[in-house]
Amino acid sequence: MDLAHAVLEGNRLALARLLTQVENGTVQGRQALEALFPHTGRAHLIGVTGPPGTGKSSLVNQLALQIRRSDPPRKVAIVAVDPSSPFTGGAILGDRVRMRDLSGDPGVFIRSMASRGSLGGLAHATSSVVQALDAAGFQVILIETVGAGQAEVDIARLAHTVLVVEAPGLGDDIQAIKAGILEIADILVINKADLSGVEATERALLSMLQLAHPAPRIFANQREHHHLAWDENPKDLESVETWIPPVQRTVAVEGDGVTELAGLIAQHVAYLQKTGGWEQREQARLQSELDELLRQALVRRWRDTVPEAHYTQVLQRLLDRQISPWQAVAELVNGGEA
Amino acid sequence: MDLAHAVLEGNRLALARLLTQVENGTVQGRQALEALFPHTGRAHLIGVTGPPGTGKSSLVNQLALQIRRSDPPRKVAIVAVDPSSPFTGGAILGDRVRMRDLSGDPGVFIRSMASRGSLGGLAHATSSVVQALDAAGFQVILIETVGAGQAEVDIARLAHTVLVVEAPGLGDDIQAIKAGILEIADILVINKADLSGVEATERALLSMLQLAHPAPRIFANQREHHHLAWDENPKDLESVETWIPPVQRTVAVEGDGVTELAGLIAQHVAYLQKTGGWEQREQARLQSELDELLRQALVRRWRDTVPEAHYTQVLQRLLDRQISPWQAVAELVNGGEA
Repeated sequence: MDLAHAVLEGNRLALARLLTQVENGTVQGRQALEALFPHTGRAHLIGVTGPPGTGKSSLVNQLALQIRRSDPPRKVAIVAVDPSSPFTGGAILGDRVRMRDLSGDPGVFIRSMASRGSLGGLAHATSSVVQALDAAGFQVILIETVGAGQAEVDIARLAHTVLVVEAPGLGDDIQAIKAGILEIADILVINKADLSGVEATERALLSMLQLAHPAPRIFANQREHHHLAWDENPKDLESVETWIPPVQRTVAVEGDGVTELAGLIAQHVAYLQKTGGWEQREQARLQSELDELLRQALVRRWRDTVPEAHYTQVLQRLLDRQISPWQAVAELVNGGEA
Repeated sequence: MDLAHAVLEGNRLALARLLTQVENGTVQGRQALEALFPHTGRAHLIGVTGPPGTGKSSLVNQLALQIRRSDPPRKVAIVAVDPSSPFTGGAILGDRVRMRDLSGDPGVFIRSMASRGSLGGLAHATSSVVQALDAAGFQVILIETVGAGQAEVDIARLAHTVLVVEAPGLGDDIQAIKAGILEIADILVINKADLSGVEATERALLSMLQLAHPAPRIFANQREHHHLAWDENPKDLESVETWIPPVQRTVAVEGDGVTELAGLIAQHVAYLQKTGGWEQREQARLQSELDELLRQALVRRWRDTVPEAHYTQVLQRLLDRQISPWQAVAELVNGGEA
C-alpha cells in the first residue's frame, strides 16, 4: 500500500512507477489501484480523437496550458494512446515535443501508451491509468487517441466530454470524415482552421452531423454501450434538454480558438451536471470496466478447470474439420452437451 | 439444412439469405453454417487494408476482374467491411459502384458489412460470412477493410495474404503510414502511383519497413495472435525461407500494375504452401474463432446462474465506490471469495 499512499500524497515518481506497474499488469499495480479506487470519480475526463494529421497533440497541449491558466488553475494530466503503433517511438517523440511547453509544471502529468498486445487490453490499461491519475488528484484528464478507428472511438467515448478533431485538406474522400466518429462527438473541432478549405470542411461536417443526428441526440454514447447485463429498455430521455454538438475552429499552434473551446467544454460539463448525464457516463464507464474484468475472470476460472491437453485435442479435431467451432465449444464448456 | 444444401449447390439467393441470417446472428444461420463447416478451408483469403483515400475499393475490383480472367477462371467473392460506419450508406454505395464492372458475372459475389454493435461482433460476423462464401465454392475471397485502425488490422490479419495499400499525397504526417499496419503486410501496394510524390511514398514505406522488420520477419502474424490457450514457446522459424514484403505500384482505375500484383499474390501462396505458413494461418484463424465463441459461451453460462438483481446490486455498490471493480468481480464470479 506504500505506493498508493505516495500517489495520494502527490509523489510524481510514485505515480510514474504505479502507471508502469498498471501497464504491465502486475499484482502490485493492481493492489495499489484497488487501494486508490475509493479516491476516484472526481476528475473530468475529456476524450480527444480524430484522423491522423489533424494536429490533435498540439490542440491537447494548448488545452492543457489553458486549463493551467484558469483561475483557480486545475491539475491536468494527458494520456496519449496510440493503438496502431505497438513498437515505434512515436509516442515517446510526442512526449518530447510536449515537454517544451509543459515541462517543469508540477500541475501537469503526461503519459504515453502504446499497444502491448490485444486492443481490449489497451482499453483496459487506459482505464486503469486514468483511474490512477484521478486518484492522484488530476482534476482534468485529457485522453488523446491517435488514429481514427473503432478502437480509438471505443477508448474516447468513455470520457465525459468527447472532442472530435478534423482539419481542412485531409482529402475530399468522404471516408476521411467518419460518421461513426461524429456520432460520439460532444464538440467538433476544426483545427488548422487557417488552411484553405476550412469552409468546405465545416460545411461537410455540418451536413454529416445532420445525417448522423436527424433526431435530437441525447446520450447516444450511453445507448450504444454493449454491456454484459441483461438488456433493459433505454430510459426515455427525449424530454431532457438537448445538447447539439457545436463546431469550433482552432489554430492550435497559434493558440487561436482554444479559449473558446475551453468555454464550450465548461458548458458541456454544466449541461451534463444539470441533466444527469455526468452520472450516466460514470456508470457506463464503470460498467464497461466491470464487464471486461468479469469476462477475464470467467476465462481464467474456466482455464483452471480444463486440462491443456483437452483443449489441444479439441482444437486439432476442429482443424481437421471433424467438428464445427460450436461443437468444439460445447465440448470445452459443457463436457460435450451442446 | 435446406439453406445449407442450396448454398452448396451454388444457389446465389440462398447464399445471400444465409449471409443475412449470419449477420443477424439467427439460429437458422448458425445451424446452416454448422452444416457447411466441413466444406470450408479451401478458399484463399486475401485481406486488403490501408488508410482511407488510397483507392482500396477500385483495387479490389480490379483484382477480382484479374482473377476472373485467369486461366482457368476462379470464383471470387468480395467482403467489404466498414467498422466505422454503423449507419451511413457508404457500404451500399460501394456495391453500386462495383456493379458496373462485375455485375452479371455468376463467378463473382459481393457483400458489404457495416458495424452492428460491438467490434468483436463484427470480426466474428466477418469470419462467419467468409466461411459461408468458402463453403459456397468461392476460391478467392477478398476481404476489404475500410479504415486504418486496429480493428481493421485485426480483421485483415486473419487472411492468408494481407495487402496493405498506400497512396501518394495523403499528407506528410508520418502517422498516415502506420507501422502497426506495415507489420501485418505480406505485400505493400502503392496505389494511385500516377500521382506526384510516389517516389517519396515508396521511400517512406521502404524505410518504415526497415524499421518495422529489422530482422527477417517470418509469420509475424501468427506470433502476435493472442489466444486463450496456454502460452507456448513460438517455434523457431528463423531457419525457414524468408518472405520480404514486396512493394508494388498500381493505378487501379487504369488497371496498371494489377497483373503484376496478382503475380506477387500467387508467389505468396506458393511461399505459404512450401513453408507450412498456410496451415499456420489456417490454425491461427480457427483458434481465434474458437476462443471468441468460448468467451461468449462462458459469459452466457455465467449469466444463466446469476440473478440480474444480484448483478445490479453489485454494480450499484461499485458506483458508490463501496467496493472496487476487482471486489465486484469476485462477488459475481466466486460468490465473494477474492
